[in-house]
Amino acid sequence: MLKQAGKEAFVYESVIDHVRGMIAHGALMPGDKAPSLRKLSKQLKVSITTVNQAYRHLESAGVLEARPQSGFYVTALAENAPETPARSRPGGKPREIRFAQLFKEVFSLANDPDVVPLGAAKPSMELMPAKALSRTYRSLAGRLEQRGIDYCFPPGYGRLRSELARRYAQAGMEVSAEQIIITSGATEAIALSLQAVAKRGDIIAVESPVYFSVLRLLERMGLRILEIDTDPETGICLDVLENALDTMDIKALLTVPNYNNPTGSLMPDERKQRLVEMLCGRGIPVIEDDIYGDLHFGDERPSLVRHFDTTGNVITCSSFSKTLAPGYRIGWIVASNHYEDLVEWKQAMSSATATIPQYVVADFLRSGDYDRHLVRLRKAYREQVEKMRFMIGKAFPDGTRVTNPEGGFVLWVQLPDRGDSLKLFNMAIQEKISFTPGLLFSSTRKYRDFIRINCGFPWNHDIEQAILRLGELVHRLPDES
Amino acid sequence: MLKQAGKEAFVYESVIDHVRGMIAHGALMPGDKAPSLRKLSKQLKVSITTVNQAYRHLESAGVLEARPQSGFYVTALAENAPETPARSRPGGKPREIRFAQLFKEVFSLANDPDVVPLGAAKPSMELMPAKALSRTYRSLAGRLEQRGIDYCFPPGYGRLRSELARRYAQAGMEVSAEQIIITSGATEAIALSLQAVAKRGDIIAVESPVYFSVLRLLERMGLRILEIDTDPETGICLDVLENALDTMDIKALLTVPNYNNPTGSLMPDERKQRLVEMLCGRGIPVIEDDIYGDLHFGDERPSLVRHFDTTGNVITCSSFSKTLAPGYRIGWIVASNHYEDLVEWKQAMSSATATIPQYVVADFLRSGDYDRHLVRLRKAYREQVEKMRFMIGKAFPDGTRVTNPEGGFVLWVQLPDRGDSLKLFNMAIQEKISFTPGLLFSSTRKYRDFIRINCGFPWNHDIEQAILRLGELVHRLPDES
Repeated sequence: MLKQAGKEAFVYESVIDHVRGMIAHGALMPGDKAPSLRKLSKQLKVSITTVNQAYRHLESAGVLEARPQSGFYVTALAENAPETPARSRPGGKPREIRFAQLFKEVFSLANDPDVVPLGAAKPSMELMPAKALSRTYRSLAGRLEQRGIDYCFPPGYGRLRSELARRYAQAGMEVSAEQIIITSGATEAIALSLQAVAKRGDIIAVESPVYFSVLRLLERMGLRILEIDTDPETGICLDVLENALDTMDIKALLTVPNYNNPTGSLMPDERKQRLVEMLCGRGIPVIEDDIYGDLHFGDERPSLVRHFDTTGNVITCSSFSKTLAPGYRIGWIVASNHYEDLVEWKQAMSSATATIPQYVVADFLRSGDYDRHLVRLRKAYREQVEKMRFMIGKAFPDGTRVTNPEGGFVLWVQLPDRGDSLKLFNMAIQEKISFTPGLLFSSTRKYRDFIRINCGFPWNHDIEQAILRLGELVHRLPDES
Repeated sequence: MLKQAGKEAFVYESVIDHVRGMIAHGALMPGDKAPSLRKLSKQLKVSITTVNQAYRHLESAGVLEARPQSGFYVTALAENAPETPARSRPGGKPREIRFAQLFKEVFSLANDPDVVPLGAAKPSMELMPAKALSRTYRSLAGRLEQRGIDYCFPPGYGRLRSELARRYAQAGMEVSAEQIIITSGATEAIALSLQAVAKRGDIIAVESPVYFSVLRLLERMGLRILEIDTDPETGICLDVLENALDTMDIKALLTVPNYNNPTGSLMPDERKQRLVEMLCGRGIPVIEDDIYGDLHFGDERPSLVRHFDTTGNVITCSSFSKTLAPGYRIGWIVASNHYEDLVEWKQAMSSATATIPQYVVADFLRSGDYDRHLVRLRKAYREQVEKMRFMIGKAFPDGTRVTNPEGGFVLWVQLPDRGDSLKLFNMAIQEKISFTPGLLFSSTRKYRDFIRINCGFPWNHDIEQAILRLGELVHRLPDES
């Protein structure tokens, strides 16, 4: 009996070792489904009960997770999980920005089909419902005719605005269709918002690191930037922000509270609440960029900052470019105090947003197709992020730090020994591998030892090889510490 | 024999009187086809030869014109042709602009289907090839799939840029696809151009009167405006402009040289040449808005200002919003010295232009459908403008002055006795008739006695009644002179 129990325990351990081994060798990666109980029981010649017990053990160790009606999956916290980077400390001075040349190089690589696309934060179009959308397009283009070619003046198509309001309501947030303005993507939404609240020379506070397109926009508009310390898990550091508000004439905060690009940080509700009290209490507008808000890995959609606002001073910007069809150029603004002014800015700067894409997206939302698509998309992004994180942990040297986001599809990676990501960029480009050097995410010279990795593409052999190769290149970087 | 000749001469006169009578009573309007020789010969019981002689006489008198393979048409210069307004004299000071409220009213009326649409400079969608475009749309949406939903980054779709370059070449102008940037309509094109050449507080010279959306844009951007005297036939007065350039720090000229809105003026080539020498010689950029350039009533397309430039300092803006499909939001910029900078402005402000509309328009251009459509459209606009001009001459009091444009689809009307167009606007709106009061076309208080009439809609009973009614209302306006 004892012997039997001992043998069973040995067998049970060997199943555990087998699974851990598959993970260590990359045969099983985060997000992958573990072999079924039946399959592994056959393969290892042990009972299904034993495999089940081993899986349960791995589950309690955080290596596997059970998903209802589906089986066991390798979690993101599997072996080789690297540490996350420390909170940023950009230093407290407002700055002007100059970066045009490096921007250009990174952008030109984004469209080169021969380069492994780890650079721009761009999802693969394979993940998007191209067929379903073009069916909707075809059917609408015929039905709309004259309406389809006519202007659809700001604030934009009413039914699309209602559908957006309905989705916010489903997520527990009160937004009315009369607060929404349709724009040509989130980029235009943010550009209009900045124009509405600030003028040349004004100081705008942002997270540090900050998405480089924001830097480029602020640079063009002649705005000065104040980068605030940011925690890669909880977002902008409120004490540092408060201190800045007390000592400087800050005109607005521009923030990505949900799954920040590049850090992936998610600001907890109580921090959003405090943020709103701090800024709106001083009459300073908050522009929140929520383009990643729908891409939560867990079940719950995070709140908007505006959800905690009672003063009407929050401007929310978003789009369908990361979730549905970047080429449609459909974004939007939710605004209260600034609504009328923003409608006029929209009219003045671009007259209107393209008509048919507004109708197509409205139909796609109303049919429920968008919500069904999002379920699949979130799962895909989650798996891709987890696999990438795992693979970086495996391929990069010890001391590499990687963020652990709960949504979105980018990773922010700190190289060990202050490794120079610009040197790495030039080496990687020779081998047709792109990523975004950390230098681009700040007006300071910080983040030179960081890189941002795009996980918007389904995992494949090329990406795996690119990351392995990138790891080898990092190993070769000189120690700059 | 003499008697017979006398009788024939009498009959011949009576045919002429008959036709003049039809025109005077509005049974025949400018652009209408006169009855066929056969028909009138039957109706008046005279010989075909006599009718033909009478028509030839009316042709030499400028009342009718013969069109090959088609017959005789009533010309714009028929009876009741009013005088054109005198050259404008806005006074020589740069000004700031404040007009938001009146803009809003005019805009909200533009979308009210119950109002006779003589307000916004907006063509009827009935004139646009909605069916043909949606066929192209449907076929493309299916074929493109992933490409259709993906970004199409600046400078925009290459084949569309090539097609645009080809059309310029056909019109005798050298423009390369590498000089073209696709934008979200001409509004964005102009907004980006202004951002590239000027900043808050700078002075921009414009024609006076000037299209009110330009005023709104300059107001929003904090730019100061310098309105230059303008002749309703030949455009901006070069001597006045030169004097301003000598005495003020003007950052750019923003001009509509071809079929200006509202005056319809067309700058002759030698004036374009001198304009370019004057401005580009001083290193001052010219932004030319050519959205009406394809809408010439005669056979020849007018030249761009850039055609005469050798310095690379002209930025040309245009779109398909007045000729094809405003709802597609497809415009473009042609630039030389400012090209790189404008590409970056486009990226910074709106990332990209909607993808599928770019493909649809490219196909539509390449197939030759666009050129065929333009032939019909120009004829329609011409007839509408001529009918409107005739009807205003008939319905409005003596002393009314009306422009006589050779392209586009708006008329600029000066009321007699300094009649107050704002009073007229409030009276007309009660009766569901819209137009744009002259006050909106200047930062000065000039043009209060002007109105702009949109001729973008096919002539119909409602429009005819609206103009007759408007004429009655003008008769009732108090003399303010």
